[in-house]
Formats: sequence, C-alpha cells, structure tokens
Amino acid sequence: MGKILRVNLNSKEVREEPLDEEDSRRFLGGSGLATKYLIDEVKKGADPLGEDNKLIFMTGPLTGTISPSSGRFSAVAKSPLTGFWGEANSGGHWGRHLKRSGYDGVIIEGISSKPVLLVIDDGKVEIRDAGEYWGKGVKETTGLIKDNLGQRFNVSCIGIAGENLVRYAAIMNDIHRALGRCGLGAVMGSKRLKAIAVAGTQEIKLADREAFTEAARAATELVDESLLKMTLEVYGTNMVLDLVNVKGGLPTRNWQYGTCGYTDDINGPAINEKILVGKKSCFSCPIACGRLSEVKGKYACKGEGPEYESVGAFGPMCDVNDLGAITYAHLLCNDYGLDTISAGSTIAFAMECYEKGIINLQDTGGIELEFGDSDAVIDMIHKIAKREGIGDLLAEGTKRASGRLGRGSEVFAMNVKGMELPAYDCRATKITGLGFATANRGGDHITAYVQGPTFLDIPFLIVDNSTIEDALLENPAEAVVVKDLEDALTVFDAIGCCKFMGMALMAEDIVPIIAAATGWDFDVNDFREAGERIYNLARAFNVREGCTRSLDTLPQRLLNEPLPDGPAKGMVVNLELLLDAYYEARGWDKSTGSPTRTKMFELGLQDIIREMGV
Amino acid sequence: MGKILRVNLNSKEVREEPLDEEDSRRFLGGSGLATKYLIDEVKKGADPLGEDNKLIFMTGPLTGTISPSSGRFSAVAKSPLTGFWGEANSGGHWGRHLKRSGYDGVIIEGISSKPVLLVIDDGKVEIRDAGEYWGKGVKETTGLIKDNLGQRFNVSCIGIAGENLVRYAAIMNDIHRALGRCGLGAVMGSKRLKAIAVAGTQEIKLADREAFTEAARAATELVDESLLKMTLEVYGTNMVLDLVNVKGGLPTRNWQYGTCGYTDDINGPAINEKILVGKKSCFSCPIACGRLSEVKGKYACKGEGPEYESVGAFGPMCDVNDLGAITYAHLLCNDYGLDTISAGSTIAFAMECYEKGIINLQDTGGIELEFGDSDAVIDMIHKIAKREGIGDLLAEGTKRASGRLGRGSEVFAMNVKGMELPAYDCRATKITGLGFATANRGGDHITAYVQGPTFLDIPFLIVDNSTIEDALLENPAEAVVVKDLEDALTVFDAIGCCKFMGMALMAEDIVPIIAAATGWDFDVNDFREAGERIYNLARAFNVREGCTRSLDTLPQRLLNEPLPDGPAKGMVVNLELLLDAYYEARGWDKSTGSPTRTKMFELGLQDIIREMGV
Repeated sequence: MGKILRVNLNSKEVREEPLDEEDSRRFLGGSGLATKYLIDEVKKGADPLGEDNKLIFMTGPLTGTISPSSGRFSAVAKSPLTGFWGEANSGGHWGRHLKRSGYDGVIIEGISSKPVLLVIDDGKVEIRDAGEYWGKGVKETTGLIKDNLGQRFNVSCIGIAGENLVRYAAIMNDIHRALGRCGLGAVMGSKRLKAIAVAGTQEIKLADREAFTEAARAATELVDESLLKMTLEVYGTNMVLDLVNVKGGLPTRNWQYGTCGYTDDINGPAINEKILVGKKSCFSCPIACGRLSEVKGKYACKGEGPEYESVGAFGPMCDVNDLGAITYAHLLCNDYGLDTISAGSTIAFAMECYEKGIINLQDTGGIELEFGDSDAVIDMIHKIAKREGIGDLLAEGTKRASGRLGRGSEVFAMNVKGMELPAYDCRATKITGLGFATANRGGDHITAYVQGPTFLDIPFLIVDNSTIEDALLENPAEAVVVKDLEDALTVFDAIGCCKFMGMALMAEDIVPIIAAATGWDFDVNDFREAGERIYNLARAFNVREGCTRSLDTLPQRLLNEPLPDGPAKGMVVNLELLLDAYYEARGWDKSTGSPTRTKMFELGLQDIIREMGV
Repeated sequence: MGKILRVNLNSKEVREEPLDEEDSRRFLGGSGLATKYLIDEVKKGADPLGEDNKLIFMTGPLTGTISPSSGRFSAVAKSPLTGFWGEANSGGHWGRHLKRSGYDGVIIEGISSKPVLLVIDDGKVEIRDAGEYWGKGVKETTGLIKDNLGQRFNVSCIGIAGENLVRYAAIMNDIHRALGRCGLGAVMGSKRLKAIAVAGTQEIKLADREAFTEAARAATELVDESLLKMTLEVYGTNMVLDLVNVKGGLPTRNWQYGTCGYTDDINGPAINEKILVGKKSCFSCPIACGRLSEVKGKYACKGEGPEYESVGAFGPMCDVNDLGAITYAHLLCNDYGLDTISAGSTIAFAMECYEKGIINLQDTGGIELEFGDSDAVIDMIHKIAKREGIGDLLAEGTKRASGRLGRGSEVFAMNVKGMELPAYDCRATKITGLGFATANRGGDHITAYVQGPTFLDIPFLIVDNSTIEDALLENPAEAVVVKDLEDALTVFDAIGCCKFMGMALMAEDIVPIIAAATGWDFDVNDFREAGERIYNLARAFNVREGCTRSLDTLPQRLLNEPLPDGPAKGMVVNLELLLDAYYEARGWDKSTGSPTRTKMFELGLQDIIREMGV
C-alpha cells in the first residue's frame, strides 16, 4: 500500500495518509487518482487561485520503475486558465525521486503567507522559508536549492511567471521539464509554494518483481525496435513540423494560413544541423527524444529543446523564421516557467491585434509588434512573465485578453475553454478539431492525439478529411476513434508512463506490467474501462463546474473561415456533426454533453452523479 | 482513348484494340482491367501452362506520369502455382516505356513453337526469334537484347526458371525488378516468350494536364514529407525486420520459431554498414527504397536489394545468419527469374523435411540440407531453377512437393492456396493471418498489408492480438479493416501506383490525380467502390475456378501449433472466427465464401454472376 503526503500551507500541518486501495484500482494513479481527490475535495465553484483549490501531485504505479519511459508524474488542480479540470504531466526524474522518498503523491492545500519550499527527504518532510528563492528563475532556483540541500535532491519549482500568477504559468522540474499546461504554475504561485525538493532511496514496491521485470523488458524491446524510436531519436518531436506543413495544417501568422515557406530553416533536420549538441532522455526512456541545443551569436543560449510545440508557437504562429530566436524564446519561457504553447499563441494573438489596429504602439509600450519580429516576441515574453505593461493583459491568456480588448479581437483568440491551441490546424484534419473541442483540459492535442494518425500516418485507417461529414452521417461510430484514443492515452497519464509509448505499445503489452507492479488482476478490458472511467470522471468535474456542449467548441476562425492556402485550402470544421457522433460514441447526452446516468453506473461512478447535478 | 496490343503466338498475329471506355471506368486499369480480360477470355478450368491461358500485361492511368511512384504495371494470368487468380506488379521503368510506345497493355495468347522475343518500338510491333537468348540469365538476356536493339529499349524477360516452368518463376524487368509472385514467369515460359522489349517516345495522355500537375505535385510533397520516406529511404524495406522480430513474428527455421537471435547481423542497419553501395528508385519515386549492394569475399556479388522478403526467406526461414550469403541467394534468384519468397520458403520446407528424416542425402543428391547452411541454400536455388535432382520436385512449390512426398511433410508446407507465405508469422498478429487466408492470389501480405498497422505501428487503432476473438464476437465489424485495406490497395495496383504510397497518401490525395489524368468524375466514393469492385471480380474468378471457404485457410502449423518462443509464445490463429467476421464485412456468403448476388449487383458485376455458378 502506498502513501499520500498531505501538506496544509495555512496551518503548516503535514500528514501522511494511506492510498485508498479501492480508488487506486479504479483510477490507477497519476492524473486518474489525483482527479478523484480533486472532485472529492475541491468544492464546486472554488477560485482556482484561492485557498480552496488544491494542487495534487501524483505518480502512477509504473513511475520510477524500469518500465519504458516511466519517469512521468502528473499534477491536477482546478485550472486558472480554463476554470475546469487542470492537469499536466511531466517527465524527467522528479517523479521517481518523489516515489523513492516514500510517497505516491503530494496534496498541497491552503495558501502560505510567505514563500515556502517543501522538502521531502526520504520520508522526512519540512516546510522551509523560500524567501531567498522568490523572484528567481527556474535554473537559478534549482541550482540554489541543490547547493543548499545537496545535489541528491531533485527540484520542481515555479519561475517568475508562476509567482506573478500568469494564467498559463508552468511548474518546471529538472530545469527543462514542464508540467506545462493549464496554468498549474499559477496555482502553485497562488499558494506561495516556490518549490518542492525531493530525495529518496527507498525501493519502489512491485507485487511480482520477476514478472514485472520480464514484462517491462519485453515492452522495452518493442519500443527499442519501433518506428517511433527510429524517427524520434533522430529528429526529436520537431520531426512532425514538415509532416504537418505538407498537409496544410501548420498554423501560421496566428492561424491566418496553414503553411509556411521556411520550414527547412526550423525543422528537425535544421535543429540537427544548426544547434544540436546532445540528446537527453527522461528516466528509463529508451528513445531520448529530448534535444540539448546551443545557439551562438545574437540569441546565444543553451538548454533542452526546442520541442515541436515551442517551434510551432514561436515560429510560424508568430511568423518567425529564425531557429536561434525560437530556441531563445523557448528557453526564456522555461526559465520564467511559462507554457510555451500558450505564451507563443498569446503573442501571436497580440500580433494580429496589432496588425488589425486593435492595439497600437501606445498599448505595446512602443514595441512594433509585427509578425516575424523575433525581438518583439522575446520582449513580450519578458513583459508577460513580469506582468509589465501589455504583458499584464497577455498574462491572462487569449480568452480573457480578447474579452477585455473587445473590438473583434475575439476572432483572433485561438483557444478552447480558454486554453490556447497547439500547432495543428484542424481545418486540415477535422477530426483533430473534435479532439480539441472535447478535451477535458481545453484546447489540447495530447488528450486524443488523433493528429498522430491523421497528420502523420496511416491514411486508410482514418476517415478522409474531405468526406468525414458524409462518413459520420452514415456511420457515427467512426467518431469512436477519438474516444478510444482518449481513453487509452488517459491510462498512460494515470500509470506514469509517457504517452509516446502508446505509439509503440498495445494495451496487451502494458497490462502485464501493470498487473505485475500492482498485484491486481488487470487485463485489456480493465485497461480500457479504467481509461473510460477516468475520462468520464474528469468530464464530470467539468460538468459540475459548468461545462456544457456549447463550450465544446472551436474558435470561430476554424469553424467559419476557410483556410486560404495550401492543401487544405477552403476547409473549415463542421463541428456539430462531429460532436453528435462523438457524444453518441461516448454514451453522453447529446444536448448537454454530460455523461448519462447509465454511463456513470456502467463505469461504477454512480457516487459522482450527484456532483454533476444532472 | 488508349489501346491494347493483342499478340497471338500460335498464329503470330498481332493486332490493336481500343480500350473499352466503360470497362476502364469500372476497373481503372492495371490488374483491375487485366482481371476483366482474364475472366472474359480465359475459360473455366484452363491449364495455366497450356495454350488457353493468357498473360496480360497492363499499365494504369497513372503509369509513367509524374504522379509519385507511378512507374508500376501489372501482369495477370491464371496462376500455375495456385490455379487461381495470378497477379503480380512491378516497378522500375518498363511500364512507362510500354505506355510511351503507345499501348496501355499487351495480351499474350497461345504458345509459340520456338522461343520468341516481342519487340514494341513506338507503335511498331514485331515477333522475333529468341533462340540466342534462350537458356540465358536475366542480366545477360537484358544486356544482349539492348545491345542488339539499342539502349533505348527496356526489357522484361524470364530467366532459366521461367523457361523450365518453375511454378514460382518470376518475370523480371530492369534486371532486378520482379513481377514476382504467382509463377507468371512460368506462364511466359510456357508460351516460349523469352522477353518483351519496349521503347517509346509518345507523350502520355492526360485529360487535364494542369490540374494533374498540381495534384501530382501536392501528392509528391506529402510523400516527400512522410514518415514513410523518413524511414524507408534510410533503411530500405528491410527496416521492418527488427519490428517483426521484436513482436515474435519473424518466421525462423521454417516457422518453427517466431524470433531469431541474429537480427543485428542481417537487418536494415547491417545492410547500410556492410554492403550498401547506393540507392535506386523506380520511375518517378521520391523515396528510393531500393538498395544497391555489393558483397565481397566468398559470396561476391553486386546488384539491387535485398528486400525484406528476400532477407526473411533466405535468412531466418532457412536459419542463415550471413548477410553476404543471403544477398547472393537473392541476386541468384533475380538472375534465374525466381520469386525469392517462394524459393526461400520452399528450401526451408525441404530443410525441415531433411531435419525430420522425410528426405535424406540420397534425395538431395548428397547435399546436407541442414538449417543454417548457406551453401546448401545456394545449391538448392541452382537445382530448382534448372529442375535438377530434387530441384525438380521443389520447383513445384511446397504444396505440390509435400503432396508428392507425403509422410507428414504437409505440415511443413507453409502456403495458402499453394502460394508460399511471406515473412510475417501471423500467430503474432492474428488479423494478418486473416489477410493471408483470404488474399485472392494465395498466401500474400501485400493484398491487405494489415501487418503494416499491426506489426509496425499504430497500436490503438487495431484490435489487440490477444483479445481479437472476444472483440470480433462482440463486434464482427472490426474485421472490416482487412476489407478496407484490401479494397484501397487494390486501387493502387489498378492505377499503376506503388502500394507504399498508400502508407503516405489518403484516397482524397489520389482521387484528384486520377480524375485529372482520366477526365472522369472520380471522388473518394468512386475510389472505394472501384477497389471493392475489382476485389470482388478477382474473387469471382477464383470462385469460378473452385475456390471455397475451405480453401481460405492457413497451414496447420499456424492454426494448431502454438508458437514456442518469444512475445507471441502460445499463440495460434483462431481463423474460423476471423473468417466469419470477414465474410460478414465483405457481404459474402459465409458458408461458401462467395460474393452474394446482392453484392455483385451492388457493385455492377451482375454480368459476372453466371461465371461464378452461384
């Protein structure tokens, strides 16, 4: 049986609790189990940045083990960016350290009056003053804490953006790994928790070590000999840039266009040629998709990345073609603790507002906020993190910023439920738009990852983009692919395993690992059911907080403004049709988008029905 | 309107016919249209090696154009290996030359009394004596013909195996490209047609050249920026060897095992390190998966390949771990004009018969036919091509050879409908076995190519191997993936485009190319319907020739003998369940495996119903 550490920052009280065995079985761990705590303990309508919100870090049964790419952990809270289910997942080594310190998870409650540092040292827990770290960047904070506590500690912390409650602030660990999305860094900042330093030497418990080792080794072999590794280790995640651009789905100049003309300057091979100095893997990962890059000259910088999403957001979205500047912007965000997707997307939004005359030089503090201007992008990142000038508005994200600006700027705010969209224009593959519209955490691509098969591969197993409406009218079950992917990938976030493993392993490869780690009977049906159960639980949280079908939507631009260029020219997303089919596949009420009572009973979630108020 | 060249080798009469416009629309071209000629013109029960069989070469509407990888053409005849629909498809440059000589296809009828060469020179046709080429290998024959006629000619020819009516003889073009499977080389040999030399300068007609160029360029860009190219151009087709082995589906020692311990010595990277001297592309292909290899030392040789299937057949199937010897065996087959899959598989069969004492040193002519003995493999290839000693028996293929040997050797004959299986053990992904069992040309992997998604990629879009039975019992429609892939890939063979393009392009990317080339209204529905129509036409041919459900089966080993090793240990294929689901998805009669009258009417094939006798 595992343990949870509960830390109340109001009272500075710290206590241990055993993991609930039954809940662990139902929700596995990671964001699954954390979501159960969230819905049980955070009251309806709680202010995400108030003392009633809780920040729940949780590992999964595989975190820290030798199972492939199992260095991952999740954090869950009510999101200050969306007001709904906030979740993020990170790799690196912090999750393993936490687990080896004796805890499966940490629940942070309340708000400290002064900045604090939580130290977890092999079962010994201490809340220390963090005055000396407050106001410092992620790299410096991490370095100082390790200097003070010892190099054996691993640090998860916020940067200046989190302190300043930027609504898309990230929590960083291992300096460059991010719990990036949903603004969990602002939640941590609102609690005045600068960092959690963990160190541990305890052996991670496994119910059947021998069977586990065998199953994990078999899975590692599969990953070792996979197309995924073959491509990802060579080019990193930015390998997809060309694949997306060629289908006309690379958001350019804030989604005004679907292609850009300079992909060769900023793609995977360009990183390899121009700036790559090494590769970096998360704990126990046989792939090492992480890049270590060094830029010389004007934008001199060194660090991990850039990932595809950073390139997409600071490159084509802002129409910047300078890989050095993109990398600099990316690393600046890492140090401020800012989600690069929301940051780049919000700056691109501001650039279009400037282009259209909705904001002017006075608003920007004299900065000519032109598309393509690298320095303007970098200036904006500083302003956002520090909430200086227009940065204070942009720190609110595109939804709130456009709401305050008005004057038609709402059209340029490319978010779903307040969360900025990743770099896949779903007009080029409409079913990806269905994934964006319905993802529990808002405009997100890794909930369903349906852009994987549609943008990247496997043409004939997926409905054609141009005929998907007809196909769904004829057979709504085609939409089940989004549900199936959502459910399967949800399990990965619950067990502490990288979602990329889901591109190389099947459920049948993973279930023996889970069974051996936990000692549960756990087969492929359990796997699928657990994914669906967790997915519906998070949806139930959103329903409770006011999510309805009308919010499962996309920015107007994607619904009404045909792409003007490239292979997807003329396309828009006919979302309502896709939604009908999706709700049917999910067994949800089509008018409200709520899980039905029947579905909740079927998944053993009847105790949650009352929460939803349906 | 295109033209067909009809050549009667009995009368030496040659005549031109216009392409039937209506049939072209219904069956597109390539193997689709050729199959229509076959079922119309070759009488039920015809002897595949007799004068009633016809050998029909056919290009498709894209052959020879700038559409990506459109250098392909097909040949169709009744197969001497299976007695059913015989079809093969090849790349290189010959198809383009034929089309530029003014002909979309060539129908070879009758039997010549003496060896002949067919010369097609820009619309001028001549049947010449081929005495000087008879008895010569493919490379020498090709060279001599080009020396005699001019280097502008491209040669398709048979080697010594075709002359000797080896039932799995291939027809070779561009020296190393093969119409490999189904024994069409034996059909050509039976007609005493040594070669067809073509040269042409005519412009290929396109209904709307501008729209065609635009659509073809867009498709080429998609292929250029695809995962397919990213991997295939680097490692060639042999990139899949590791991916198959790691799932436990690499047939080893004639399918006694599913894994082999020396893949690092013979895989894609090994080719790159040890023997690769260049890369070779077919006409208009942006990928160039073809390898140019040179082996030094004992097995000194140089030529194109080896492809994965050659490595699989002469490597693990025969338990040979020497890449040089494998490459030598592969190139020897190219020069003899032998299908490497059937050749390697038949030798592996003989090795197991030797291992089990069913044949002995007397039978083999003193050769110790042990698994792993490279020289024995090479000796056997010589004997098979020349029909010397035991080679005369093995030249008949595993089905006939085991039938004659008896004594339990049938269990080691790894074929479906007489055609030897490719190197994917479907006990490791059962749905691949469904593809093998139902493929119209017998034990074939590129009809459905369902091993692509199952062995190589995309776990969550495919039913789990261990639970597929339950899944199909619950929802037989899961089997529709095999039908959908068969139908889609059938179109590629009909239009003259490489099936690999189907891994990078969607129907929607291809239909504008077809529409612009032909001037037809042709949308995605037409694409899918055409595929299904052609597929059912070929099935109707097989039904006419006696194919029933009982022949849609797999070797006993795959049905009853659990894999003893590797990740798929303990697995067999529960085929009947898969078949039920497949026939349902196809709309075929479950007891007979015949397309129903309803299905035939639906596809506009009512004129074929009588042929089937159902």
